[in-house]
Amino acid sequence: MPVSGRRLRLGMVGGGQGAFIGAVHRYAARLDDCYELVAGAFASTRERSLASAPALGVPEDRTYGSFAEMAAAEAARADGIQVVSIVTPNHLHYPAAKAFLEAGIHVICDKPLTTGLADANALANVVDQSGRVFVLTHNYTGYPMVRQARAMVEAGELGRIRTVQVEYAQDWLTTRLETEGQKQAEWRSDPVRSGPGGCIADIGTHAHNLARFVTGLEVEALCADLARFVEGRVLDDNVQVLLRFRGGARGALWASQVAPGNENALRLRVYGEKGGLAWSQENPNHLRFAPYGDAPRSITRGGPGAGPAAAHATRIPAGHPEGYLEGFATIYGDAAELIWASIEGREPEARARLAPTVRDGMRGVELIEAAVASSAAGAVWVDLPP
Amino acid sequence: MPVSGRRLRLGMVGGGQGAFIGAVHRYAARLDDCYELVAGAFASTRERSLASAPALGVPEDRTYGSFAEMAAAEAARADGIQVVSIVTPNHLHYPAAKAFLEAGIHVICDKPLTTGLADANALANVVDQSGRVFVLTHNYTGYPMVRQARAMVEAGELGRIRTVQVEYAQDWLTTRLETEGQKQAEWRSDPVRSGPGGCIADIGTHAHNLARFVTGLEVEALCADLARFVEGRVLDDNVQVLLRFRGGARGALWASQVAPGNENALRLRVYGEKGGLAWSQENPNHLRFAPYGDAPRSITRGGPGAGPAAAHATRIPAGHPEGYLEGFATIYGDAAELIWASIEGREPEARARLAPTVRDGMRGVELIEAAVASSAAGAVWVDLPP
Amino acid sequence: MPVSGRRLRLGMVGGGQGAFIGAVHRYAARLDDCYELVAGAFASTRERSLASAPALGVPEDRTYGSFAEMAAAEAARADGIQVVSIVTPNHLHYPAAKAFLEAGIHVICDKPLTTGLADANALANVVDQSGRVFVLTHNYTGYPMVRQARAMVEAGELGRIRTVQVEYAQDWLTTRLETEGQKQAEWRSDPVRSGPGGCIADIGTHAHNLARFVTGLEVEALCADLARFVEGRVLDDNVQVLLRFRGGARGALWASQVAPGNENALRLRVYGEKGGLAWSQENPNHLRFAPYGDAPRSITRGGPGAGPAAAHATRIPAGHPEGYLEGFATIYGDAAELIWASIEGREPEARARLAPTVRDGMRGVELIEAAVASSAAGAVWVDLPP
Amino acid sequence: MPVSGRRLRLGMVGGGQGAFIGAVHRYAARLDDCYELVAGAFASTRERSLASAPALGVPEDRTYGSFAEMAAAEAARADGIQVVSIVTPNHLHYPAAKAFLEAGIHVICDKPLTTGLADANALANVVDQSGRVFVLTHNYTGYPMVRQARAMVEAGELGRIRTVQVEYAQDWLTTRLETEGQKQAEWRSDPVRSGPGGCIADIGTHAHNLARFVTGLEVEALCADLARFVEGRVLDDNVQVLLRFRGGARGALWASQVAPGNENALRLRVYGEKGGLAWSQENPNHLRFAPYGDAPRSITRGGPGAGPAAAHATRIPAGHPEGYLEGFATIYGDAAELIWASIEGREPEARARLAPTVRDGMRGVELIEAAVASSAAGAVWVDLPP
Repeated sequence: MPVSGRRLRLGMVGGGQGAFIGAVHRYAARLDDCYELVAGAFASTRERSLASAPALGVPEDRTYGSFAEMAAAEAARADGIQVVSIVTPNHLHYPAAKAFLEAGIHVICDKPLTTGLADANALANVVDQSGRVFVLTHNYTGYPMVRQARAMVEAGELGRIRTVQVEYAQDWLTTRLETEGQKQAEWRSDPVRSGPGGCIADIGTHAHNLARFVTGLEVEALCADLARFVEGRVLDDNVQVLLRFRGGARGALWASQVAPGNENALRLRVYGEKGGLAWSQENPNHLRFAPYGDAPRSITRGGPGAGPAAAHATRIPAGHPEGYLEGFATIYGDAAELIWASIEGREPEARARLAPTVRDGMRGVELIEAAVASSAAGAVWVDLPP
Repeated sequence: MPVSGRRLRLGMVGGGQGAFIGAVHRYAARLDDCYELVAGAFASTRERSLASAPALGVPEDRTYGSFAEMAAAEAARADGIQVVSIVTPNHLHYPAAKAFLEAGIHVICDKPLTTGLADANALANVVDQSGRVFVLTHNYTGYPMVRQARAMVEAGELGRIRTVQVEYAQDWLTTRLETEGQKQAEWRSDPVRSGPGGCIADIGTHAHNLARFVTGLEVEALCADLARFVEGRVLDDNVQVLLRFRGGARGALWASQVAPGNENALRLRVYGEKGGLAWSQENPNHLRFAPYGDAPRSITRGGPGAGPAAAHATRIPAGHPEGYLEGFATIYGDAAELIWASIEGREPEARARLAPTVRDGMRGVELIEAAVASSAAGAVWVDLPP
Repeated sequence: MPVSGRRLRLGMVGGGQGAFIGAVHRYAARLDDCYELVAGAFASTRERSLASAPALGVPEDRTYGSFAEMAAAEAARADGIQVVSIVTPNHLHYPAAKAFLEAGIHVICDKPLTTGLADANALANVVDQSGRVFVLTHNYTGYPMVRQARAMVEAGELGRIRTVQVEYAQDWLTTRLETEGQKQAEWRSDPVRSGPGGCIADIGTHAHNLARFVTGLEVEALCADLARFVEGRVLDDNVQVLLRFRGGARGALWASQVAPGNENALRLRVYGEKGGLAWSQENPNHLRFAPYGDAPRSITRGGPGAGPAAAHATRIPAGHPEGYLEGFATIYGDAAELIWASIEGREPEARARLAPTVRDGMRGVELIEAAVASSAAGAVWVDLPP
Repeated sequence: MPVSGRRLRLGMVGGGQGAFIGAVHRYAARLDDCYELVAGAFASTRERSLASAPALGVPEDRTYGSFAEMAAAEAARADGIQVVSIVTPNHLHYPAAKAFLEAGIHVICDKPLTTGLADANALANVVDQSGRVFVLTHNYTGYPMVRQARAMVEAGELGRIRTVQVEYAQDWLTTRLETEGQKQAEWRSDPVRSGPGGCIADIGTHAHNLARFVTGLEVEALCADLARFVEGRVLDDNVQVLLRFRGGARGALWASQVAPGNENALRLRVYGEKGGLAWSQENPNHLRFAPYGDAPRSITRGGPGAGPAAAHATRIPAGHPEGYLEGFATIYGDAAELIWASIEGREPEARARLAPTVRDGMRGVELIEAAVASSAAGAVWVDLPP
């Protein structure tokens, strides 16, 4: 993992006091020393934005009360930000990203892409027309052993894929936390800010994207059974989905926020004609690989059997665990390389092309809409766009 | 686990040379010293049956060439068998069981119950009319920690159940083993002997029964996607099923015989309003229990937190693993108690009532038929009988 | 694992009501159907012996009040026992074994061999002179993956062994259980019945024997620090030992009965020039093998990479766990083969030669005496006999 | 884990191209945004130092060819460094630390403290006289669950400690890597740069310090058996040590760099009268806690049962793993708090007092010297200084 020694000037929309994911983005931006945070619209008023700025080292004159104001002001500065991180609730992703892209500023955006497919399509067009880099932080694809898994599938070590089991289980919404003043729970359970999907959007999309990333397969059709187990909750909190992939593979996706004993139990298992793979986010430095007819082995980050795809996402030797922030930082590192390549008018390094794109984001929104539609119709099969 | 010191006279149908499950039944019958094998129709000709008898200690004059002959002859003896184990391919379960029940002989029968629902219903009637004990060897319910799990759900330690994830993954049919002379693969992949379900019948029913046993819930409707991944294979080898349980719980069942790196990976996870449970057959002496809001704990067979339901199925102290044969033997122990109670005209001990019944077998056949029908119609929802 | 179809006539000394290990021996004897229990001196008076006999199916006229009486009476019968299991407290192993061997009866004896080296030597002489089979139930060597490990070391897959870490941790004596009427704790903490070693004798010898069995190495010298942590306890309850093996390997042995959270945590790790192995008794169906420079793999009982040594100790397919009773039964199976070979005047099958011998028992007693002497002298180095 | 928003001006000695630990220190310094690297003597000549500086963002005029030059020049600047990280081979720790401390600059220093006890004592005096902060990067004490473990022991949840098993196993020196141009292996196997201990100094001290940190106990005496298994190697590569702690606890320490299949397998187990704890560095977000008589539980970073000591070392929610860099960064965060408190003339926050001190470093050097002396005398007991 090269550290460049030069930093991109970074702004941030959202991520003020009380937010969770904004701090994660800042850790990720800082870890490999590719960014310097110099501006922000950390909240929806300038006053509240200013309350967060000092501890983040952002000067008052570059602290804004809205993304629109910030995009305009920063675009006008000679030392304006080169890239912005958008870490707001979902419904603001589209307008904020649009504002910065149209101002010529590269964008790193949290997932899911948008609250609906219309916005997603519109955003994809804006990205295309802008010529700017747009990276979506499906951060789990930044884990070294996830990249290793993808490389192994791509190299044919599993043969043709037959079955994909993916799941993401949590328990933090086992009770009705959203009415108890917990900020994360509150907006995630509000359709206006989150969109029509609850659990399916918040974590189901991570599971879906992880499966796509590793297998290279796209979902052709799904049959989704969304449940709301906690009384009074508006959006789904438990999701079971049957998946059919283009090319014939079958799969199942389970996402739940009401599964006691699960913290962030994102787990992927892929089985092909020649072998199987299993990976778990909570113990991410290992990849179980079972070549059919041979003893299953544990490939570790940095250890024997781990190839260049993993090495590019690795900072420290085998046996010293890297975690969530490191995986997230790899996405930021990829984004930095894409942005520098854009600035310098050159091709980016191959590894940086693995960073999630606006198209990956569209796939996620398609999943949400299809799942919601499927479930609303009684859990029937719904085709996904080609 | 009491050992009685007296043995039931046992016969066996099937289980001759080359068979797998017959030997398992004999281990199970022997372990707790409740049975003595004294007669058998180990194969479909007397000659081949005789080839197996000596090593099993069965005298020539009680070695038979057919179950019909055996039922008649044994029923006529003063020292005739009291109970028979039926360990044939599925299609013979019904006629064989019928013959013995009608001869007044108790029956222990391998699963699935029958190859179709008509036979299953008929067999249930025969059982009812016979007044004899009929135990189906859904052996995984004999594991101590499975009984512990059931007791905890029953006691309300999980609250109302919301989600059930159950799976049974194997890899032994990753290639087309059934054409390579492997006897187990051969009959299991033949609809005449196995019935209309492949993987769903062979191991999906185990997963289904385990979920029912632990949760006490019945499946109301399912949506099943059955696949045949190995070219030329007639029956399904990979199954993904959405489940809706009576009372509102949701679930998913995955069974596969083409998942490299899985041997007998039967795994159940149950989540309720107040807690979650997880159990895995390959490491069966532990039960993970996560009371919501508290640290997850590992309850071990014989260790702190394990109650009487587990203790009744336990032979040796904590930390000395009991395995598959012991769990299977517990079913045989329960059957022995039921049979002695029947012989002695008394109520059996409570624990013995946990032994799987012909009704459990019917539920399994209903699952198979519903899954096959669902999948044939494009993986649509199918209601199960009430 | 062949089942012969013929049974050796077995007697038992000890193992009456309230005993633990006697029942285990009976399970082990029964599992593979190589023995029939027909006589016993289950307790030290005939009256108490008779109280246990009926439930064990032993007739009154073959129930004895002492081993001496039993040896004499059974030797005089045409249908007398061919083999006896000695499952008494340690101090009776020698006189009981001597009585039966001198009566021409083969012996299976629990460990440790004796309470002192003088008795051990004397017993070895008796065995040699008797020409009878003597098998010591160091049962952990009967686990399939332990046999696999031994075979791999023997085949040179680890290269020359450098380091051996072995441990056996329990927690059942964390408090002073021996004064609370617990029978197992009581005699094990009494030097008269147990000998001079507590924890070192009861479980340290198992750890030591496991290390010897797998590596083929003998301890040349040791430095032992024995502790008595529970006030009032006479014998050691926690033992740390440095080991030097002949040939240059080094090792450490830890045994404890006061380590909360450990049930029967017997664990062995062996490291050589070319690779490492790790095995744990509580999850015994797996063996971790790390060839240096390659990804570590999990070899499972019955799975890819498991060879004939494991297969001979295996009853059921991979993924269906075998446990403690099965491993114990393998020792009984080996003993049966040795006894039949002796009766028939032929060479036994090779696998049966793996059964622990009186020499293995002597090594254990040497360990105990050396450890006690070392510790008494302030934990100094003590050489073991060559 | 608060991020202050203001950065200490940091210099670095060592850590140029090809070094390993220097990069780790920089990650750790950057993660929580408490430091800015502004000067360095990255190598032992100015030319080689300059080769590393640009990628680290250090200007040419603050890039030095020796620590002495750097200490003098930086102390003379108004904007000179406030703190220096010393990441050289061991033999330079003392002279470098002395130079900066005497120049009034705070010091963060890699472990082990020095190559000998004379230097260690001298350095402790320099620290005391300087009034400056000195933090030793025994980084494993920065893991949240290690702090949790310490807090639980301190709170008496284990009762009086009886037994401590600690180990640190690696395999990277299984062959003679030090002669193959591997820079890390080269200096670590050279007594001039490493001191008299090899494995015992490099990783044995980590294990020792971890045990001290968690239990609060000091080693009273040890008996060490040091081995050199790889032919031609000068220093020990495998170490087994018996430990006696003040107050009566016993323990064992195993450290090895020749144990194939181990990457950085640092593992601690502590057993007391009332319970046991187990922690493993390779999966550091969990702590196993077994209260005697109750089911063992898994306490996770951020999950139920984790207290304020863990929370202070935590950045992100439960289930999203934090790893080695995060734990290392916690030490840097503690150091920053200590330094700011020193600058501001106030008491530091309590949590920062957990940072390892020069006294901890002396304990480590005492361990090395005692172990080397013990082993040289044939593995005899050696007392440690009080």
